[in-house]
Amino acid sequence: MPELRKDPITDRWVIISTERGKRPMDWQTEPVTRTGGFCPFCPGNEDKTPPEITAVRPAESVRDGTGWNVRVVPNKFPALQIEGELNRRGEGMYDLMSGVGAHEVIIECPNHLSDFADLEHGHFRDILSIFAQRMLDLKNDTRFKYILVFKNHGTAAGASLEHSHAQLIATPIIPKRVMEELEGARKHFELKERCIYCDIVRQELHSGKRVVVAREDFVALQPFASRFPFETWLLPTQHQSHYEIMEPAHLEGMAKVFKETLQRLNQVLSNPHYNFILHTSPVQEPAMPEYHWHIEIIPKLTKIAGFEWGSGFYINPTPPELAAQHLREAQI
Amino acid sequence: MPELRKDPITDRWVIISTERGKRPMDWQTEPVTRTGGFCPFCPGNEDKTPPEITAVRPAESVRDGTGWNVRVVPNKFPALQIEGELNRRGEGMYDLMSGVGAHEVIIECPNHLSDFADLEHGHFRDILSIFAQRMLDLKNDTRFKYILVFKNHGTAAGASLEHSHAQLIATPIIPKRVMEELEGARKHFELKERCIYCDIVRQELHSGKRVVVAREDFVALQPFASRFPFETWLLPTQHQSHYEIMEPAHLEGMAKVFKETLQRLNQVLSNPHYNFILHTSPVQEPAMPEYHWHIEIIPKLTKIAGFEWGSGFYINPTPPELAAQHLREAQI
Repeated sequence: MPELRKDPITDRWVIISTERGKRPMDWQTEPVTRTGGFCPFCPGNEDKTPPEITAVRPAESVRDGTGWNVRVVPNKFPALQIEGELNRRGEGMYDLMSGVGAHEVIIECPNHLSDFADLEHGHFRDILSIFAQRMLDLKNDTRFKYILVFKNHGTAAGASLEHSHAQLIATPIIPKRVMEELEGARKHFELKERCIYCDIVRQELHSGKRVVVAREDFVALQPFASRFPFETWLLPTQHQSHYEIMEPAHLEGMAKVFKETLQRLNQVLSNPHYNFILHTSPVQEPAMPEYHWHIEIIPKLTKIAGFEWGSGFYINPTPPELAAQHLREAQI
Repeated sequence: MPELRKDPITDRWVIISTERGKRPMDWQTEPVTRTGGFCPFCPGNEDKTPPEITAVRPAESVRDGTGWNVRVVPNKFPALQIEGELNRRGEGMYDLMSGVGAHEVIIECPNHLSDFADLEHGHFRDILSIFAQRMLDLKNDTRFKYILVFKNHGTAAGASLEHSHAQLIATPIIPKRVMEELEGARKHFELKERCIYCDIVRQELHSGKRVVVAREDFVALQPFASRFPFETWLLPTQHQSHYEIMEPAHLEGMAKVFKETLQRLNQVLSNPHYNFILHTSPVQEPAMPEYHWHIEIIPKLTKIAGFEWGSGFYINPTPPELAAQHLREAQI
């Protein structure tokens, strides 16, 4: 008998096929590959992107020159535009405003062929640190209510360039999925005076069966009501509402757990295409006792989920307990 | 400057690229094709499916024999199981229940190569009628709170068999997307004492710029805050909360508008893969003044939308006004 499970934060029910659960070998997807060729993100082509916003580069190297390790540039084809007023207005019963926002690209490494998960530890940590730096800078612009950091890894996840990169979009609105989490977390807090993510971390660490990687400061786990096979969440074990205020010591721990989690996913699923997305608190809000930042990693294994788009009702053929077990047992 | 538009029902913001909007010719996707070969849905293979639930077939033909025009069978690999108790229970802070439900397949025509949109009018209407009949039958089982009717058309939309068919899933829960619409519609009704969908239909018919096909009884339109290029909604122009109580005369009109809309999409987008999904009121509820059933048609044109999954934040490169214009101008 399949199970209907409810996500405790958003109240979304999912169907989990517990009996004939699909194992890693049942997921035959094309691995992410890199063929090379001309690439605007490669060293030497710095003039093919808009001018650099910031970079991790040696003191002696020059802006928009080679020598960098991580490089942040505006997206050449931005979804939103940085200049202008919001100009909120109506059209009959509808509401709209101008598409003001920031859209940046974080080029994660100079080597075209490097895989994000295989970058050396300090380099990986620098990328996580740059995410926070960009958020701290952009929050000074009070037009921006939210900053989304995400990565499309591989064509099936929506990447149009194969050189490893993440993206950042700053928006004057709070995205719907985040809003649902904020509201769900608030409801739990009103009832219990506890953060629901802290409660989840505590229960998961206690049971252990959905845990992928655990350290004192960070944990990677498969959520109880996972929508997708091998959907993985990464959370700090101690309460923290805003990603961007993380301390350097925590960045170290996060880099360790995040990198190991991705390596395990790469091992078990043969370099899958995936998205990750950072859910953090709205940047203009002060510290929130009810919300807890986290990263959601979603491997692209299923055929484009047919009616899920239109119903918000997911069918997951791999129970999270089975996925977690395979990930824990992987030899990396 | 792109536009940020808010869906008035669910309060979801989307980015619409109004300037360099993508035209139909910019969407190069593989058309839906049918190659034939063995098919469990073809006449003569009736014993390859579970026994027939109902069918449109001549009086002289026999159950599970050939001669049918439309045939409904249980899904051989159901996502939910029809027998058993819900057995609601907890696991620490989590909620779950047994995966009880119905999962049926509506085989829409005997000819393996027929396209849904090209079926003759009376045949098309019979399919719409069968959707209603199955809902009326299944609502007698009070374990079921909601009945989802949907179609995955083409592999990119999740179809695993190419023979034209729709599916029905009856669930003991209300799917999240529908719940959001119900809540949004209720909020509007409390404020205005009017159905928000009726308001939308009125405004759209008045402006005309997002209308695809309009008749006195039904309208097909591009929603103001469309998430996907060529996303199309089909609604009755007069208020009606439950699909299954539609009168025969209305089925006629719906068949005309639905079929013409799909033919226009096929013409403009060269037989795209698509999903459609019926959003109707929860089956156990009496008539609702605030909610209005409708069908959402979503062509699969974009690369798997990367971070949209994780944020609920959509970027639509084709403004609905442009899509509607192309669909209206199509020669069918």
